[in-house]
Amino acid sequence: MSGTLHVLGLGPGDPELMTVRAARLLRETTNIAYFRKPGRAGQAWTIANKLFPTSSEQIVFEYPFTTEIELHDPRYLLQMNDFYESCAKRLSQRLTSGRHVALLCEGDPFFYGSAMYLYDRLRQTHPTEITPGVSGMSGCWSRSGTPITHGDDVLSVLPGTLPEAELVARLQACDAAVIMKIGRNLLKIRAALTKAGVIGRAIYVERGTMEDEIILPFVELARDHAPYFALVLIPGRQAAR
Amino acid sequence: MSGTLHVLGLGPGDPELMTVRAARLLRETTNIAYFRKPGRAGQAWTIANKLFPTSSEQIVFEYPFTTEIELHDPRYLLQMNDFYESCAKRLSQRLTSGRHVALLCEGDPFFYGSAMYLYDRLRQTHPTEITPGVSGMSGCWSRSGTPITHGDDVLSVLPGTLPEAELVARLQACDAAVIMKIGRNLLKIRAALTKAGVIGRAIYVERGTMEDEIILPFVELARDHAPYFALVLIPGRQAAR
Repeated sequence: MSGTLHVLGLGPGDPELMTVRAARLLRETTNIAYFRKPGRAGQAWTIANKLFPTSSEQIVFEYPFTTEIELHDPRYLLQMNDFYESCAKRLSQRLTSGRHVALLCEGDPFFYGSAMYLYDRLRQTHPTEITPGVSGMSGCWSRSGTPITHGDDVLSVLPGTLPEAELVARLQACDAAVIMKIGRNLLKIRAALTKAGVIGRAIYVERGTMEDEIILPFVELARDHAPYFALVLIPGRQAAR
Repeated sequence: MSGTLHVLGLGPGDPELMTVRAARLLRETTNIAYFRKPGRAGQAWTIANKLFPTSSEQIVFEYPFTTEIELHDPRYLLQMNDFYESCAKRLSQRLTSGRHVALLCEGDPFFYGSAMYLYDRLRQTHPTEITPGVSGMSGCWSRSGTPITHGDDVLSVLPGTLPEAELVARLQACDAAVIMKIGRNLLKIRAALTKAGVIGRAIYVERGTMEDEIILPFVELARDHAPYFALVLIPGRQAAR
């Protein structure tokens, strides 16, 4: 009998924004797996470690290199494929031996989460359960005090990796937007926000819901580079009524 | 000294998908406000009532009529404005007398939530705190077992109230989409999914994460009408790798 793979969304960063269910499953599951960059504690561990059972066995997946390498570089795809294959194999061995595994994921697992790449490889052969989490963007717009969508607003979620002209066109075509994956795309994003005419209502959020969060009108951000997991929020245009 | 208005996201429906923070604030806050349709228990009450303090005072806001009246009808806007003004006044009286109030909101409050209309009216005069929640769409895509976005997918969140031609154009322009506010827009949405060529991968979810949830490939849905809060998911096109 295979154990169950529990994919646990941990929410945007503040440990109290974990769901009651994720907190319960963390306390009950001895085998705990998570990703991290080499040499870092990792966001998932940082959010969740206080709830790990004392007897927990940690299965750590260290990314082969930074997530900021060009996504369409064939070497990137090959190396990431090998990496996810080897992670899935490690989990499969534990599951096959009958142990349940909690695979941690910051934010909401099915929304741009790395955990999906292991879920996609294991779902056919092992029982799986997904616990959704509060997304990073929800944490950020809540902390900014700015409702993102009212009424029949259209929201677009845009990766900052898109070409500038595409960002401009998409920003002009929606009511509200969230730009993810900022990092070294910051200057391009600033140009796109300006050309689309939305920079005046754009909000920059870094480490939202965490102790050292930064929330600023985008126009006040005096920088050329930002962390990969920072966000830009463009609230919808409908005023309260 | 004014009390604090706590706007609490309750998540998608399963009470265990509430955040640890929302559960704590619910237990600690005696004045609890929520919306409901006349004659119904209401989704917010249903999710949260088991955590209400025994001494709780409930402040109930009954919508003046169904949410399915045409949003752009001037009578709708006027009546809803009067309604939200009167709700805000009731909360303001409690807050001014120094009591903290928990204003409940299913899903994530700043993402199409009614609570925003009271928050927008009270934020200048009273301290406010927002607790984000797992959105209804996160609950639905998690239960469907289908990751919604990988890599650099663009996600569009579209109200089903949009005209058919606009739905088609927007569905064709994104990688992944969520259509909200289904209700009597179902036939129009079916036509738009077909014309956009995405109906084959569309998933219908009703009451996601709740005991009586329905999850179906959209093409298997044999109906002309659906609940307002059903969702249609169109997962991104990127396969796992």
